[in-house]
Amino acid sequence: MPQGQPSVVPSDGLTTRQRRNRALTIVHTGEMKGKSTAAFGLALRAWNQGWPIGVFQFVKSAKWKVGEEAAFRALGELHEQTGQGGSVSWHKMGEGWSWIQRGPEEDHAEAAREGWRQIKRDLAAETYRCYVLDEFTYPMKWGWVDLGDVLDTLTNRPGQQHVIITGRNAAPELVAAADLVVEMTKVKHPMDAGQKGQRGIEW
Amino acid sequence: MPQGQPSVVPSDGLTTRQRRNRALTIVHTGEMKGKSTAAFGLALRAWNQGWPIGVFQFVKSAKWKVGEEAAFRALGELHEQTGQGGSVSWHKMGEGWSWIQRGPEEDHAEAAREGWRQIKRDLAAETYRCYVLDEFTYPMKWGWVDLGDVLDTLTNRPGQQHVIITGRNAAPELVAAADLVVEMTKVKHPMDAGQKGQRGIEW
Repeated sequence: MPQGQPSVVPSDGLTTRQRRNRALTIVHTGEMKGKSTAAFGLALRAWNQGWPIGVFQFVKSAKWKVGEEAAFRALGELHEQTGQGGSVSWHKMGEGWSWIQRGPEEDHAEAAREGWRQIKRDLAAETYRCYVLDEFTYPMKWGWVDLGDVLDTLTNRPGQQHVIITGRNAAPELVAAADLVVEMTKVKHPMDAGQKGQRGIEW
Repeated sequence: MPQGQPSVVPSDGLTTRQRRNRALTIVHTGEMKGKSTAAFGLALRAWNQGWPIGVFQFVKSAKWKVGEEAAFRALGELHEQTGQGGSVSWHKMGEGWSWIQRGPEEDHAEAAREGWRQIKRDLAAETYRCYVLDEFTYPMKWGWVDLGDVLDTLTNRPGQQHVIITGRNAAPELVAAADLVVEMTKVKHPMDAGQKGQRGIEW
């Protein structure tokens, strides 16, 4: 992406530097592949900045995105061993959240709420600099997590914590509150031509 | 992304397994961020499969995407040291292609053509299993690289080599030839609100 000039200079009383380093809320939505993939691509940049990364996957199946997880776990270990890049903490609802000392929660709504409570605790404590809330639009859409609470928490979070939220059907209020929103639109998909998913591509 | 059922079963004489493992041509286009980012996210999956990865960046500036490059170089070194994941070869037009023993080519059209010639050699030799041709739509659009030659080469490439091409304004013929095409559409961008790019997000 070429370096751009802002089309508007806002009268928010901030210097360019303050505005430049403002924490961003980023939403990747739309019906097509690439939402999570691009979020993890962004997290690579965060890793290279040496930022602590927190990934929270609000998905039921543990099968998906194992490729990204394995690569980020490797990058996290590299950080621990050599100091290169940032730390990586990976939390999955589908296997029971990492901070809970028991198996997966049977009640998915309650599991999603517990995930969100932890994110709130981490945002308050400024645990990470980059948050990937993968598939987090769904618990909001299904009413498991209160949208107003999410917007309130994001708006009032301290420091410079970037938050990336992925999933279809992002609520209009979330889009309105976000700084950057990308919609992944389907032009063509192999399944249209009768092809099933394959390893290395879908997971 | 949930596991889907193909809507059509093609009469191409292939078994499901053969079709499943078919080499894919993937195009990420559209005006918005996320095209390259999602391509590198896909490359994380390839890395986790242990596949050799070849990245060819057709960009003039060496400034962009250093985050991804650093992370992938780290993953590549990890592969060399421990055998984990796949190998990573990263080639940049902006710094002079890695296989050329001199500085950057002054003639950008010729530099782009040389990049494409190397990709053709690698595809013929099956050097990599996953190719990221970053910003490769531009040399095609500008006529530096012949579109017909690209389509011909991709159509007839041997083995199971996945090719991901990113950039705006993908030619209709390329879209037609691709298996999977995602358009990244802008919903909202911080520059609209007067914000400039920031480290860890834009690079």
